[in-house]
Amino acid sequence: MDTIVECVPNFSEGRDLHKIERIADAFRARENLKLLNYSSDKDHNRMVITAIGEPEVMKNAIIEATGIAIKEIDLTKHSGEHPRMGAVDVIPFIPIKGMSIEEADILAKEVGKIIGEKYQLPVFLYERSASSPHRQNLASVRKGEFEGLEEKMKHPEWKPDYGSATKHPTAGGVVVGARMPLIAFNVNLHTTNMEIADKIAKKIRFIGGGLRFCKAMGVDLKEKNMVQVSMNLTDYTQTSIYQVVEMIRIEAKRYGVNIAGSELIGLVPLEAVADTVSYYLGLENFSSQQILETHLME
Amino acid sequence: MDTIVECVPNFSEGRDLHKIERIADAFRARENLKLLNYSSDKDHNRMVITAIGEPEVMKNAIIEATGIAIKEIDLTKHSGEHPRMGAVDVIPFIPIKGMSIEEADILAKEVGKIIGEKYQLPVFLYERSASSPHRQNLASVRKGEFEGLEEKMKHPEWKPDYGSATKHPTAGGVVVGARMPLIAFNVNLHTTNMEIADKIAKKIRFIGGGLRFCKAMGVDLKEKNMVQVSMNLTDYTQTSIYQVVEMIRIEAKRYGVNIAGSELIGLVPLEAVADTVSYYLGLENFSSQQILETHLME
Repeated sequence: MDTIVECVPNFSEGRDLHKIERIADAFRARENLKLLNYSSDKDHNRMVITAIGEPEVMKNAIIEATGIAIKEIDLTKHSGEHPRMGAVDVIPFIPIKGMSIEEADILAKEVGKIIGEKYQLPVFLYERSASSPHRQNLASVRKGEFEGLEEKMKHPEWKPDYGSATKHPTAGGVVVGARMPLIAFNVNLHTTNMEIADKIAKKIRFIGGGLRFCKAMGVDLKEKNMVQVSMNLTDYTQTSIYQVVEMIRIEAKRYGVNIAGSELIGLVPLEAVADTVSYYLGLENFSSQQILETHLME
Repeated sequence: MDTIVECVPNFSEGRDLHKIERIADAFRARENLKLLNYSSDKDHNRMVITAIGEPEVMKNAIIEATGIAIKEIDLTKHSGEHPRMGAVDVIPFIPIKGMSIEEADILAKEVGKIIGEKYQLPVFLYERSASSPHRQNLASVRKGEFEGLEEKMKHPEWKPDYGSATKHPTAGGVVVGARMPLIAFNVNLHTTNMEIADKIAKKIRFIGGGLRFCKAMGVDLKEKNMVQVSMNLTDYTQTSIYQVVEMIRIEAKRYGVNIAGSELIGLVPLEAVADTVSYYLGLENFSSQQILETHLME
């Protein structure tokens, strides 16, 4: 498999286990696609699927899953703690391997157009696929939720990008778009002083004048007697793991504090790992294709 | 695929392309096995196959390949520059993933026993599978080659481990064993002084009192105006990439020399890459299973 996309669609069903399985089934038994994980939450009344695979196969899977979800889920009877706008609430496409964010964007738009027309759904593009800056943020697009969608769509700035010009009576609308993979990365500091963690977080993150694709905050690890700079790296191809570590080291020096360790939470793309090794070893021309196991993925 | 073994068998045929393909065919069209590479050399009159896959599948492939090679290759008519003892000259098994060297050793012995009996071949175990220290080294086992094998086997210290007690008339004998993957890793130094590269190489390598699984020598990179410490790491699970880099850094300091960069040559196991990242980031509990793409290999 030379090209791998990740898709993490959210569906508004977290209680009926049979419905949950029927939706997940769309991602099963497909060549060159793997359902990595699916989890549901009763309070949120919502499920999240994580799948990786070839773009064309993923396209077919998500189109099928959307059809199943629309048949199974009736938002007029739905309640839950998590905000939602549709039966299929949001469909993010994330380039993992051999794929640029631009190609993931093309895929997201293709899927958006198809499901909009096929199922008579209003489709809103977001993140890197957004048709306007005010539509980049998911929370802004979803604001008003299912119940307020009809009213919201009357405003020209919330005209759907594809599909039906009116709300689907039971399935609402859907948000589709491409985004880069998030890397959840935490660095622990040899101090219990939260002020230091907060100050470092503010200094390294984008909104504080720091690295462009770094979100950060201080966290108190009371059990460990340490504090932590907890981060989301929103585009590892531009803001690298080693950059945030070395910047934290530089900032921590001001307070005479050392890095105690770090942790990568959840999944991380191989390219981000290869990039980190290349930096620290000063590797020339290292390619992730040199990692033996990558040849088992073809 | 939870368990992956690499097999790099050498066959004494490097000229007849049809024979070469027939031998390679044994590693094709098998579920959970991948023929990564095969190369042949006319002067050496020899071919090398690189395959990775599940141990059971690999076992079947190498048994079949041995049968084909014995039928196709007649060592009484064979000449080439490379020393060789048999039609199938050497079969190394290398644990890559989810497998210990002890398990690779068991596999090597299973295969050795089977091909010895099935094809009436004398089988000699070497490397980690050797039945005695004087049989560890391939060159020692192969000494005398095909032509001297009958005479050699008369000495009790060269009695075969499995199979026929006499030389196969056309296929000679075969050397089988388990070994760890080799990592070929070079570190370049910001100096043209070869004496420094040699001194560092001697200090860090096993035979000079250095790291146990490190072979090293100085190399002059005339075109780059640099010198290099060129290494083979013969067991990365015990002697790590970061250890050799940091030891070279420490030694180079004595001469006021900095590391200019490094290179990994050929393939490297994912675990070695994950180990390197873990060290430099100070990662707690990082597992290669957290690398997204590993889930495509299952």
